[in-house]
Amino acid sequence: MSVRAGIVVTGTEVLSGRVADQNGPWVADRLLTMGVDVAHITVCGDRPADLLAQLRFLAADDVDLIVTTGGLGPTADDLTVATVADFCGRALNLDAELEAHITAIIDRWMKRRNAQPDSSPLRAGIRKQALVPDGAVPIPPTGTAPGVAIPVDGAGMPTILVLPGPPRELQAMWPTALDTPPVRDALAARIDHRQEVIRAYGLSEADLAETLRLADDTISGVGDLEVTTCLRHGELEMVTRFVAEAAPAYAELAALIAEHHGKQVFSTDGSTIDDQVVAALSGRTIATAESCTGGMVAARLTDRAGSSAYLVGGVVAYANEVKSGQLGVPAAMIAEHGAVSEQVAAAMADGAADRLGADVAVSTTGIAGPGGGTDIKPVGTVCFGVAVSGRPTATWTRYFPGDRANVRMLSTVAAMHLVAGVLDDPS
Amino acid sequence: MSVRAGIVVTGTEVLSGRVADQNGPWVADRLLTMGVDVAHITVCGDRPADLLAQLRFLAADDVDLIVTTGGLGPTADDLTVATVADFCGRALNLDAELEAHITAIIDRWMKRRNAQPDSSPLRAGIRKQALVPDGAVPIPPTGTAPGVAIPVDGAGMPTILVLPGPPRELQAMWPTALDTPPVRDALAARIDHRQEVIRAYGLSEADLAETLRLADDTISGVGDLEVTTCLRHGELEMVTRFVAEAAPAYAELAALIAEHHGKQVFSTDGSTIDDQVVAALSGRTIATAESCTGGMVAARLTDRAGSSAYLVGGVVAYANEVKSGQLGVPAAMIAEHGAVSEQVAAAMADGAADRLGADVAVSTTGIAGPGGGTDIKPVGTVCFGVAVSGRPTATWTRYFPGDRANVRMLSTVAAMHLVAGVLDDPS
Repeated sequence: MSVRAGIVVTGTEVLSGRVADQNGPWVADRLLTMGVDVAHITVCGDRPADLLAQLRFLAADDVDLIVTTGGLGPTADDLTVATVADFCGRALNLDAELEAHITAIIDRWMKRRNAQPDSSPLRAGIRKQALVPDGAVPIPPTGTAPGVAIPVDGAGMPTILVLPGPPRELQAMWPTALDTPPVRDALAARIDHRQEVIRAYGLSEADLAETLRLADDTISGVGDLEVTTCLRHGELEMVTRFVAEAAPAYAELAALIAEHHGKQVFSTDGSTIDDQVVAALSGRTIATAESCTGGMVAARLTDRAGSSAYLVGGVVAYANEVKSGQLGVPAAMIAEHGAVSEQVAAAMADGAADRLGADVAVSTTGIAGPGGGTDIKPVGTVCFGVAVSGRPTATWTRYFPGDRANVRMLSTVAAMHLVAGVLDDPS
Repeated sequence: MSVRAGIVVTGTEVLSGRVADQNGPWVADRLLTMGVDVAHITVCGDRPADLLAQLRFLAADDVDLIVTTGGLGPTADDLTVATVADFCGRALNLDAELEAHITAIIDRWMKRRNAQPDSSPLRAGIRKQALVPDGAVPIPPTGTAPGVAIPVDGAGMPTILVLPGPPRELQAMWPTALDTPPVRDALAARIDHRQEVIRAYGLSEADLAETLRLADDTISGVGDLEVTTCLRHGELEMVTRFVAEAAPAYAELAALIAEHHGKQVFSTDGSTIDDQVVAALSGRTIATAESCTGGMVAARLTDRAGSSAYLVGGVVAYANEVKSGQLGVPAAMIAEHGAVSEQVAAAMADGAADRLGADVAVSTTGIAGPGGGTDIKPVGTVCFGVAVSGRPTATWTRYFPGDRANVRMLSTVAAMHLVAGVLDDPS
């Protein structure tokens, strides 16, 4: 018997699609990783009736824990605490200590901004945020909005954890929230699950599905593994959740996949291709020379803290004059082979390594579309080069499906895999 | 009386947060724009019991239309059509015409891949996808999965529109889906709404909220406007939905906002800052010189088709040697003022314009964090330069909050606004 949870995401801006919800997936992932079974995520606007309907639905569907996100601000349209209290039949009480705490935070902010606004709506907002349902445990704010944990009651009401909407505030509050007695009690009955991730590149969902069917027929206990596969950003990810007793079945499944798709599997330890590129560089520096990806490869290589240790820089060479002027690609080569050619890709990589003084360089030049395609080089054609000092420069041509954004995204991912592949190859 | 809708997103990969849902927000936006009131979005994994519970919840909450996305594939874990049919109490019938249609699509794919797989599971999958509930209207596939539109019945069951999960397939199918008799009937009662968007930069939510409170007190009929404000990517967006009769109230509200925040409002016609940068360039070319944004500004400028008409290229100058070597920033200047300084930002922009041969150039150099901050230049300090030929180069220093990703994102947005601001300024 596992613990079941439901997540309620509030906010008209999320419901209407103007802001992408980050909280539902984040909370779901945390709960799943802890062995909680997430049954539902629901999204509603800032309307108490819709929120009430969703809370009633989740309670009726027998979840043990409801996590709500959003609607904790000081203004009138932020109604989550009042609505949840109404749902639970608990009165709201002013928590004087909490009020003083929020007031101190706001006063510090105001002082920093040198602001002296009319304080009466401000104080009213703070008082609203300091209201706590009867018997609930307040969670100190990480921004200005406190959270609330409401214990399960005898009347079949689940435990409810009320969290703020800004993802940074929610995530900062999470550890404290888990440690409140109501949430600790709700999670006590959870079953520990393991989760393993296998990542592959250049493997189709259909081919993996065939191997999984083979596993169904040949591995005993495979039914106890909860396998999800999904293709994202050109990589195929297989996530398996299982209880400790099913570990031998998972080991057999992992071996079967290694046997059939060993060349495509690039990660079984949770590492991403970004992790692997950094590891494979192992102290060497890298530069980029990008045409169709327009800076996306460099942006990706500088995503993480400390990237200045390996990324020296890059050139976005969109115009042919920039390919020649900044990277030394001969104009005659561009005229003869075209800007989208392995010759030019190689010259771009060589030029970047040479001129920017890097040990390794990666280049992209392709037709992202929608215009510019020909019969021989259709939209989606992309050439790559990887230069490593002391070795011949390698080049590839790939054909990617989809629109401009997709071609650019898949090209960026391909560049990362090509770099990792070349650096891992001992030759 | 408006039409109420609910959206059900299926897929374990979405529920678990491994894939960001694109369909719920997309469908919600389309429906809202047509004047449909979207009450709920619900997300469930690939489990029939959870999907059934969500369908029952929406029907009990009196929605007129349910749109489901996902779960239409050929494999056993794709269960949406069967579950929806079960929910409606409708039998499933094989649609021979649909089966032939899907078979033809698959055969073309196989031929292109030169594949000859064992065809019996394949044929079983196609037969599964060609099952249509009694009385429902099949919608031809845009990938391989057909959609289904199920008419409202007398027993209080809402209209149900079943759509595929891949966003490109779903979006391609949308116009046909809207035109099926069941969906046409369901949407007949909707009320036409107008939607207006005001976008501002450098305006806080609190300041806008104060103006909205003033509007509440002074504009008659303001209560008929449905106003949503949200801060995203450093821009404050105010979306207002209203019926035709409320247009005068909206006009007054828009005038009040222009009066109070005219300097911060940059768009009232739906245009984005990206649109405005391209318009303001008006035939001139642009180059980038980026340090902390690491290629993100160039990537953004090459996002759209036809960007080679204005973006000649850029330099990602992460290492100081690249700032000097590729952009001509004097090493002595870096030593004296630091790499993060307005002097260096100006020299980077000048160097990019000069060396890449562009009419306009924009530069960024800052401390994205988490390391590298000092008392005088804390993490989040970013200097910008904009060079326009024939004019003195302008520079700014900005301080951005949040983590590395946030600082880089806000810096990229700031660069766009600074370029647009300089180009729009006639001096």
